[in-house]
Amino acid sequence: MSAPDAVRIARAGLARLMEPSDLTGLALVAVAGPEEAFRLIGARDGKAPAREQQAVAELLEGVAASRAEHRLDAGLERWRPRLPDAAPARDLDTMRRLGGGLLVPEDAGWPGQFDALGLGAPLCLWWRGAVEPAALPPVQDLMAVVGSRDATAYGRQVTSELASALVREAVTVVSGGAYGIDARAHEAALAAFDGLGGPAGTGATATAPGTLPGPCGGRPPTVAVMAGGLDRFYPAGNEDLLRRVAAAGVLLAEVSPGTAPTRWRFLQRNRLIAALCAATVVVEARWRSGALTTAHRAAEMGREVGAVPGSVYSANSAGCHRLLREGAALAVTDAAEALELLGGRPRPSSPTGSPGGERAPAHPLDVAGGGDTAGSREAVRSRDAARPHDGLDIQDLLLLDALPVRSASTPDKLAVVAGLGIGAVLGGLSRLQARGLARRLGDGWQRTRPD
Amino acid sequence: MSAPDAVRIARAGLARLMEPSDLTGLALVAVAGPEEAFRLIGARDGKAPAREQQAVAELLEGVAASRAEHRLDAGLERWRPRLPDAAPARDLDTMRRLGGGLLVPEDAGWPGQFDALGLGAPLCLWWRGAVEPAALPPVQDLMAVVGSRDATAYGRQVTSELASALVREAVTVVSGGAYGIDARAHEAALAAFDGLGGPAGTGATATAPGTLPGPCGGRPPTVAVMAGGLDRFYPAGNEDLLRRVAAAGVLLAEVSPGTAPTRWRFLQRNRLIAALCAATVVVEARWRSGALTTAHRAAEMGREVGAVPGSVYSANSAGCHRLLREGAALAVTDAAEALELLGGRPRPSSPTGSPGGERAPAHPLDVAGGGDTAGSREAVRSRDAARPHDGLDIQDLLLLDALPVRSASTPDKLAVVAGLGIGAVLGGLSRLQARGLARRLGDGWQRTRPD
Repeated sequence: MSAPDAVRIARAGLARLMEPSDLTGLALVAVAGPEEAFRLIGARDGKAPAREQQAVAELLEGVAASRAEHRLDAGLERWRPRLPDAAPARDLDTMRRLGGGLLVPEDAGWPGQFDALGLGAPLCLWWRGAVEPAALPPVQDLMAVVGSRDATAYGRQVTSELASALVREAVTVVSGGAYGIDARAHEAALAAFDGLGGPAGTGATATAPGTLPGPCGGRPPTVAVMAGGLDRFYPAGNEDLLRRVAAAGVLLAEVSPGTAPTRWRFLQRNRLIAALCAATVVVEARWRSGALTTAHRAAEMGREVGAVPGSVYSANSAGCHRLLREGAALAVTDAAEALELLGGRPRPSSPTGSPGGERAPAHPLDVAGGGDTAGSREAVRSRDAARPHDGLDIQDLLLLDALPVRSASTPDKLAVVAGLGIGAVLGGLSRLQARGLARRLGDGWQRTRPD
Repeated sequence: MSAPDAVRIARAGLARLMEPSDLTGLALVAVAGPEEAFRLIGARDGKAPAREQQAVAELLEGVAASRAEHRLDAGLERWRPRLPDAAPARDLDTMRRLGGGLLVPEDAGWPGQFDALGLGAPLCLWWRGAVEPAALPPVQDLMAVVGSRDATAYGRQVTSELASALVREAVTVVSGGAYGIDARAHEAALAAFDGLGGPAGTGATATAPGTLPGPCGGRPPTVAVMAGGLDRFYPAGNEDLLRRVAAAGVLLAEVSPGTAPTRWRFLQRNRLIAALCAATVVVEARWRSGALTTAHRAAEMGREVGAVPGSVYSANSAGCHRLLREGAALAVTDAAEALELLGGRPRPSSPTGSPGGERAPAHPLDVAGGGDTAGSREAVRSRDAARPHDGLDIQDLLLLDALPVRSASTPDKLAVVAGLGIGAVLGGLSRLQARGLARRLGDGWQRTRPD
């Protein structure tokens, strides 16, 4: 069910007047409703009505907001200078023309996971792309993959493997559309999607806006949550990439078209990424990095957070190690471990996996072993796989240690060397023989090679 | 106070008969005392006396020991075949000749930290080197630095930096004398010690056995806890290194001279390393690695455990990442973080640091910034150090975002762009100006560069 037009218009207007996370404004909307809030601000010279002032102050009492934010008149003073720029009908029209629209909390498809932000939930969500935000997968199938702009080759490689494995597992990769890790995450998600039969080529016009492209029943490979207005693609160097994200997935923003991204809006955008996804993985981040904000916000909301370890000499991993040391994140070394963050999520009827058939592993734990990754779990762990002596009890281990490899030894001598009774030696030799670890040689016994 | 000779002889004899962590044997010693235990085993064909059998079974009831270990007669059957090899007086003599000796729990200098092993505490400690084990530093100044034998260049570099920084902080580096990480840890500790004025050259004869070498008041730079007898240096490729460890520090083993290292003895040796030190740092370890045993044993005893992160593509870091994921270890990325594992230990009157003077930083957190490390904390974090806008409140951050860099803007215009009231803008501009972040230009304001 869609929200009434008047509500949509009011929220579109408010989004132009208020910065993201303006708690006074959000409180006013909560107590008065969006239409009345917009009307009240629009009454240019009116004072803050006592009733609303009281209600806003009471609502903010329970929130960790500064005293200044309790004052509705200060809010009015803040918002009113922007009234000349408020043109909600025009903004809605602009986004419609660009193949998008506006989702508001009153819409049935509003993502429930934003409730975790409490009063800080966004006023509305502008969107642009092939998939309406109302058609996003459920929260447990959304994973944020974020990191620093100046990614290293290592970070880019890990990001690519992670994002493509996630898409093959029907998980949508959410990121921030920035250079570096973000760009690589979107890029790899799109490539994996194409590999599964998603729309190839993907000029922005490849699919009608808001329709369900490709073979995936509308489950987009990737979502970019932006800090600026969606009328243009920012940063400029990512324009082509973001166009392709829009063609196969969707771009989201809480700020209106025409709004420039600023430090504040970047910070607040990060909370949206954290809230939208069941888990956030930070691939590379410096000691101080916006990606850490995303991780911390996610942790505060009880979302899962992963951090990819790296060289202790890499400044780009220092932030990840910081998260690990703080206990804010779990170490994630491959796609399977990233998927574990989503919990024991049952594999869906593999909407993106089925067209590719053999490329979709049966079990999350098999993902990294898919074969086309540079550093699969197998490669990293194989040489340490099960050994023949696993599961032997202490006495048999002692006996195995005592068995010579080149010569042979009698049970009596083995008893001395191993420090075992003769009964334990005889029983043990037959158990080791059964496992192929020992063999007879004349009167004696020896260990079979290789160890 | 020294233990009576008869007790020392008895424990030396028992060490030859019993494998490390032979709980039946250790229980017998606990209930009957070492002399009676040795006598009882020596009564070649005597049955297990009912009283001792009962006491051993009762003692082991409370321990997680297997049923088989409750049976004293099975123990006797195990130990007696080795009686012909038991020659405690000869073993004691051998170790004396090699510049060492035997420490037993009845000695006043017995390291109290082995109590954490409960019944599994070693029967005795053979030693060889320049420092009697009774003169070891207190547990909070002992740190284990361990890892895999096939270390990478990365692991070796981290180990070197860690071990040398620890020694400069008067922490003794404990390891297992093996190839790879262990060898590098001993090596770097010795080099740092030499740099501080420790005995240079260090042939095994450089100092009289058991005396306090160099400038450090007997605090050894490094301790090697070995899995085999101390009459020879094993592995052969580390012979020169281990001689130098003996010359400046000490080698320890619970097994008698002449005893070969076996898988079991390696495993049990790891518990000694874990128990001896307040903290254990694993620098590199494969998915399955002996170093993980050390870490797990340390964690079980409530000791601190650190693991050094590395590339997710390195099999040699997979074990470290495993420890991090299990929550068994804290990520350690430099010496300062390793020192944090030792708690807020007050810097001692810097016995190893004082001769070097300026090389001993005033505070543990300064260690990695010492300058001679390839990847100091500074290098890894510096570019992310404090920024001029740190500590600005939200409104001033919004204002800073709104200030143009090339042109200038009036307060009225800034109020619209920043979404702030005019009062907040005027107050904010003066605060930003005071921080050097904003300046007047004609009627307007601009941001000062660089950002």
